[in-house]
Amino acid sequence: MIPQDLQIAQAASLKPLDDVAGAMGIGSHLLEAYGEHVAKIKLAAIDELADRPRAKYVVVSAVTPTPLGEGKTTTTVGLGQALCQIGRQATVAIRQPSMGPTFGIKGGAAGGGYSQVVPMDVLNLHLTGDFHAVTAAHNLLSAVLDNHLFQGNATGLDTHAITWRRVLDVNDRALRNIIVGLGSRTDGIPRQTGFDITAASEVMAIFALARSLHEMRERFGRVVVGYTRQGTPVTAEDIGGAGAMTVIMRDALKPNLMQTLENTPVLVHAGPFGNIAHGNSSVVADLIGIRGGDFLVTEAGFGADMGAERFFNIKCRASGLTPDAAVVVATVRALKAHSGRHRIVAGRPLPEALLAENPEEVHVGGANLRKQIENIRLHGVSPVVAINAFPGDHPSEHAAIAEIAREMGARVAVCTHFTEGGRGARELAEAVAEAADEPAGPDGGFRFLYPDSAGLREKIETIATKVYGADGVDYDGAAARQLATYEANGYGHLPVCIAKTHLSLSSDPSLTGAPTGWRLPVREVRASVGAGFIYPICGDMRTMPGLGATPAAHLVDIDEEGNVVNLS
Amino acid sequence: MIPQDLQIAQAASLKPLDDVAGAMGIGSHLLEAYGEHVAKIKLAAIDELADRPRAKYVVVSAVTPTPLGEGKTTTTVGLGQALCQIGRQATVAIRQPSMGPTFGIKGGAAGGGYSQVVPMDVLNLHLTGDFHAVTAAHNLLSAVLDNHLFQGNATGLDTHAITWRRVLDVNDRALRNIIVGLGSRTDGIPRQTGFDITAASEVMAIFALARSLHEMRERFGRVVVGYTRQGTPVTAEDIGGAGAMTVIMRDALKPNLMQTLENTPVLVHAGPFGNIAHGNSSVVADLIGIRGGDFLVTEAGFGADMGAERFFNIKCRASGLTPDAAVVVATVRALKAHSGRHRIVAGRPLPEALLAENPEEVHVGGANLRKQIENIRLHGVSPVVAINAFPGDHPSEHAAIAEIAREMGARVAVCTHFTEGGRGARELAEAVAEAADEPAGPDGGFRFLYPDSAGLREKIETIATKVYGADGVDYDGAAARQLATYEANGYGHLPVCIAKTHLSLSSDPSLTGAPTGWRLPVREVRASVGAGFIYPICGDMRTMPGLGATPAAHLVDIDEEGNVVNLS
Repeated sequence: MIPQDLQIAQAASLKPLDDVAGAMGIGSHLLEAYGEHVAKIKLAAIDELADRPRAKYVVVSAVTPTPLGEGKTTTTVGLGQALCQIGRQATVAIRQPSMGPTFGIKGGAAGGGYSQVVPMDVLNLHLTGDFHAVTAAHNLLSAVLDNHLFQGNATGLDTHAITWRRVLDVNDRALRNIIVGLGSRTDGIPRQTGFDITAASEVMAIFALARSLHEMRERFGRVVVGYTRQGTPVTAEDIGGAGAMTVIMRDALKPNLMQTLENTPVLVHAGPFGNIAHGNSSVVADLIGIRGGDFLVTEAGFGADMGAERFFNIKCRASGLTPDAAVVVATVRALKAHSGRHRIVAGRPLPEALLAENPEEVHVGGANLRKQIENIRLHGVSPVVAINAFPGDHPSEHAAIAEIAREMGARVAVCTHFTEGGRGARELAEAVAEAADEPAGPDGGFRFLYPDSAGLREKIETIATKVYGADGVDYDGAAARQLATYEANGYGHLPVCIAKTHLSLSSDPSLTGAPTGWRLPVREVRASVGAGFIYPICGDMRTMPGLGATPAAHLVDIDEEGNVVNLS
Repeated sequence: MIPQDLQIAQAASLKPLDDVAGAMGIGSHLLEAYGEHVAKIKLAAIDELADRPRAKYVVVSAVTPTPLGEGKTTTTVGLGQALCQIGRQATVAIRQPSMGPTFGIKGGAAGGGYSQVVPMDVLNLHLTGDFHAVTAAHNLLSAVLDNHLFQGNATGLDTHAITWRRVLDVNDRALRNIIVGLGSRTDGIPRQTGFDITAASEVMAIFALARSLHEMRERFGRVVVGYTRQGTPVTAEDIGGAGAMTVIMRDALKPNLMQTLENTPVLVHAGPFGNIAHGNSSVVADLIGIRGGDFLVTEAGFGADMGAERFFNIKCRASGLTPDAAVVVATVRALKAHSGRHRIVAGRPLPEALLAENPEEVHVGGANLRKQIENIRLHGVSPVVAINAFPGDHPSEHAAIAEIAREMGARVAVCTHFTEGGRGARELAEAVAEAADEPAGPDGGFRFLYPDSAGLREKIETIATKVYGADGVDYDGAAARQLATYEANGYGHLPVCIAKTHLSLSSDPSLTGAPTGWRLPVREVRASVGAGFIYPICGDMRTMPGLGATPAAHLVDIDEEGNVVNLS
């Protein structure tokens, strides 16, 4: 039995951040300390490091996960640690966790066991305040918008066509649907609206995709807050909020440097949602990390159909960087669940039947792994399967996963980094290094799935049929009209970010494996014009979580010595 | 013509914070850097510095201000700089400005001219994120509260008797009155509520008054969020939110160290509202600053009837510290306005008639200064009048103020620290040093205005008659019932914080000078049980500002080089 994550983290031996940055070739003059164990890296680093060799760029993705998650962050951290152990200087890049779920049931997102980012309590709470800055910038624009209505609505905004809501980094279901502006005549214009969680803010997606302060300023200006009665888009620039948003977000744009339990450098930066947004850490962090040594290992949210697809087609488009290898994390429990014979519920023990040795079931559920490997190869990138081993796994089941991986042309390794740290992911590190060193890979090197010039429907249909395995796409009337309007507005060149469940390759969370014979239903389509993508909605996308009956908020506290307890 | 505040600030020559802290006797091991020009001071400093001599403790207050403010922060900063110039090591302690008004019309609160805290853009924006932490802790309790209702309302909270709202640090009138919990059955329980600005949060008042992490934890536990149908108070402890709030606020409790343009150490910490809360910077900052050298100069919000009265009777009760002198800032324009012959409106030029030389008018309006000096002496503290000079002032008018001050037993000095920095406040510094060095002062040394054991009505009546100059107090029926209930609930020992306008000694903002022949109307009474005060409401207290027709949010931006522009 290994100790609790928080205990391992609190016992960690941290290096001075100057040394951690030094390993990446980053001098102290480029650091700004934020507390004792986090530093921001000045954006001047991008230019200053430009002459250093370019690291191999590795994205970590996964099979379609169960509601428990399959240890993607832990594997990302473990791989970074392992690469350093085999003599290849690595930097890890991950998203900042949202504070809402930290006090809900999910717990934090610092990795786990002996593959963690530390200090985990700093990571899972405010970090350097970037999420708070997103909240402040987003809600300032909301206030400017409601003030614009109150002061006479010079742009002629249709109050029923306002798309800009408010955000808070808390799980608060009561804020999903609200009416504002009640009271007297001086208390604003009454209208229905609501709050999303901060991770769902377009401000978050923008700061994750911008390459510079000035580009962020321009993107904020392009944010569409709503439409006039004639259907003309009204932007943040039109109502006078984009400059102030930029000033609020100025320091947030600098990536945060932390370290793993083994002192591997970690860039923690931005945390856009993985369904209605692109679910990847920031471009500026990667522009710095790509000059930080031999490898930059970055994580993409959810399964390879979700985070990795957006990594390839949205994030790499924005950054100009191209990946050299992609890891697909697979677990025995996830593949067994993909056989369709078990039901896994968060907060409840795994079903007994799932724990029995059953390699045949892994083969059945392996259809999901096959498809996700294919999704990586579709983009010309070399796939490596990381089998994230759990204590109850059987060797025959690991062998089954390895067999599938090899069949599909992927390298494969069993990993025990949760219990052993970097040492447990050395085999994976070797496989990743081999894959990344292979010139152009088996599929000819990285390519986008679709060109900018393709129509929005073509882009949606390409992802749906090639990546998700759908037979085609069905558009509701509203969705079809919205797509036509967006193309008329000049947004047709943007990539698409399909908002569907992350619990299935299909849009139906109950369909396991690699579903076939289904069509993707597009209910409506929305635009994040500042972030630079169009997002079709396929299913019920929750953008503000709630708290459960016994949320972590009831348990987290300080002890006699002032230490944090019960944070996970 | 001196340059704009932001230009002066951007041209400042800052010292390393290690040196700034060193001047206070604080070693680098007690600092945590937050960015390049701010550090948090660890709370261990309180014990570690306990053997150093106790500094003289000076509170800076003012006459009843005009809507423009009379330069209290600027004088506080100028005085700190001047004390250092005359060889007395001084530390300045001020509140953190709220970000809401920074993007409204008020502008920031870093002082001005050559008496500023720098970097002013850092101070006026996120600083180290303490306000964001308050927002997060407050709203987590709100989410826990609405979840408590949703999960079955085990405490039997009356949804119409919930007193805990939500907060955001933005001027957003549309959030004053809202309905939450709309939508479907899974989207919470519909009810009416609203948002206040973060400065108005009880979390803000609590962290400003707590002496330690554990005391803050206990105060959070005592927060009353509402009442059952039987009238029993329900606390944050009852619904399980106080521990998580403490964890969110853990780092915020450490004071922030900055410096003035002349490198005088400045502690910037907490920013509770000056009407519904006590309007003073934090107790922990003062517990550290009191060991930082010869003088600790702290600012109290609004006029001496407001901030200074709460400083004496609420803050000093919580901290155990006692003041040695009190500065009353007076301006010619404020005293002329107190003659009742002019009307000053924020955002408009001063009336022509007010600018003409008229010492007689100063004498008439001087009634306000007389009363405010009396209010200081009521507490046994030596008063010093700081005449904050403006370019259009006439020497005869300064002489009139000086005459009033001397008549009332106060020392007095003319100050030009806005245009000259510390040099312009040397005379004030000498007067303050003399007053503070006087053993026990003319009035026998510091005393509270009322004992803890006095009844709540007696406390209210004492402040109203002795400090405000009212003939008595009238209670609405609801207010009388609430006072009786609070005493029955065991809150009778708490001090009171009377929420009235800051623009008059009376509760009517249109009454200038030192109004007599009026009675204080108490409309309702509320309780901040965690912060530890009862606050009677006398007038219309706005706890969420709005934006004007051309707010600063429209103008603040970055320039080509990425510098902030139009922040004031």
